[in-house]
Amino acid sequence: MAEHEDKGTGLSVGQLTALMEEHFPQLQEGSGRLEIEAAGGGGARVRMHQDVRMLRPGGTVSGPMMFKLADFGVYVAILADRGTAALQAVTTNMTMNFLSRPAPGDLIAQVKLLKIGRRLAVAEVALHVSDAPDLVAHATATYALPPPARTP
Amino acid sequence: MAEHEDKGTGLSVGQLTALMEEHFPQLQEGSGRLEIEAAGGGGARVRMHQDVRMLRPGGTVSGPMMFKLADFGVYVAILADRGTAALQAVTTNMTMNFLSRPAPGDLIAQVKLLKIGRRLAVAEVALHVSDAPDLVAHATATYALPPPARTP
Amino acid sequence: MAEHEDKGTGLSVGQLTALMEEHFPQLQEGSGRLEIEAAGGGGARVRMHQDVRMLRPGGTVSGPMMFKLADFGVYVAILADRGTAALQAVTTNMTMNFLSRPAPGDLIAQVKLLKIGRRLAVAEVALHVSDAPDLVAHATATYALPPPARTP
Amino acid sequence: MAEHEDKGTGLSVGQLTALMEEHFPQLQEGSGRLEIEAAGGGGARVRMHQDVRMLRPGGTVSGPMMFKLADFGVYVAILADRGTAALQAVTTNMTMNFLSRPAPGDLIAQVKLLKIGRRLAVAEVALHVSDAPDLVAHATATYALPPPARTP
Repeated sequence: MAEHEDKGTGLSVGQLTALMEEHFPQLQEGSGRLEIEAAGGGGARVRMHQDVRMLRPGGTVSGPMMFKLADFGVYVAILADRGTAALQAVTTNMTMNFLSRPAPGDLIAQVKLLKIGRRLAVAEVALHVSDAPDLVAHATATYALPPPARTP
Repeated sequence: MAEHEDKGTGLSVGQLTALMEEHFPQLQEGSGRLEIEAAGGGGARVRMHQDVRMLRPGGTVSGPMMFKLADFGVYVAILADRGTAALQAVTTNMTMNFLSRPAPGDLIAQVKLLKIGRRLAVAEVALHVSDAPDLVAHATATYALPPPARTP
Repeated sequence: MAEHEDKGTGLSVGQLTALMEEHFPQLQEGSGRLEIEAAGGGGARVRMHQDVRMLRPGGTVSGPMMFKLADFGVYVAILADRGTAALQAVTTNMTMNFLSRPAPGDLIAQVKLLKIGRRLAVAEVALHVSDAPDLVAHATATYALPPPARTP
Repeated sequence: MAEHEDKGTGLSVGQLTALMEEHFPQLQEGSGRLEIEAAGGGGARVRMHQDVRMLRPGGTVSGPMMFKLADFGVYVAILADRGTAALQAVTTNMTMNFLSRPAPGDLIAQVKLLKIGRRLAVAEVALHVSDAPDLVAHATATYALPPPARTP
């Protein structure tokens, strides 16, 4: 049943933000603050605010921080599509191509769901620095979705 | 020098087709006929015509054929951008996500170059069946580009 | 139940070869003949016999043929582990790194299952030319496994 | 010339550790302490010591931390092979498969160089928790190597 109804959960950005804070409070540690800017319609846009802790000597965001932001963005896009039933979704594959050294600034991840099926979701992610159009990295991610609850 | 001038080689679809036939005649064997539909502007669109030889019992295109079409499309997009200087480019990485079983029909690959630098080119490829908008596969590919010729 | 019993199906190389011929007769077309050399114990070794049809002008195996052999090998390793219950397994991701131009000769794929769970199997594949130890390519592949049959 | 001589730089684990501390002091922030346990012979073994900061509520290491350790390990293996000439090497691709939820404990990455050429290095990485043999993740990474210095 769930499979046919899950286009658009109606979860707002505020509701998704609250869900993330409730279930993953540790996400805001160890990197710049994560913010959901948009979600729904088969995608999401998330931002990592610049933070001295995440800067390399050259002043750029590290690979693990790009991974974190991309992974966060895909999870948010899945939640926006499937609702809280998908909280148990887990990353099974992440492929990242690093394209150019990011300039200092907030990092933005633009997520597009390529597929969201019964068991797997696949998304692509374009990462760029705020106010700079060039891609700094591109990722594709696969999530395993929790089995749908059985109707009694 | 080449790095600053290579946006747009001016090679037409006809010229690219002739180049491929001259250098890779064997590409047209073992699968449906490959056709370049568009190239340039940082991308390409290529088509694999349906052929009984490439059909699985269920009537769909096999994974290796999708790989072949995606690889062909990225190579064409690089040639359109860099010209014949890039004929020696070689695939170093191909990551494919298979999203749905393709229906019978011609297979189309839409290629977008994410980066074309001095040494590496990275592209993403969306594969779908002609007249059906849904993606059947998505790929990212990296090519190593030949070192630029030294000016004497 | 199946999950706890599926280490070792007892399918022999001969039985696996017969299964492949019955279910995928088209696999033997369009490339060098595929042969299962060993299977079981969490892996497999498969061979693609040299064939003029698969040779590029330089005399080497093409990328799509390496893809085909790697994909075949992973499928065989899964069947050896899970038995005929896994015939419906489908490739969801294949990531290939091309390392060196293969010399002429039979191509061998050595497959190792990294994980075989309830829903997903992940394997790595090392490809080399017969009698040459150097890797020509390396792949990781993910297969979605069919849901286990429900006990009535 | 350098290409033929660079098997084995003779850099010891102590020298590699000092190099990392000098050039990447920020690596030790934001995660458990990184330690080089072995390096050379075409590979490396590195450890991320357990740290409360990197634990998720369930007590396990996060994806970005696994990424960080894998990336660190590959870089160390390249340095051990190529010496300080490779300090400018940069990650261009990282593909990670997440296989099982890690138990609490130090995380170990075992790195094997699949290829180290003139321009690219490719490695595979097996991640497991100390004292537990099962893989928690597997990665393949590509680094672009700095062009060799020209002989005058």
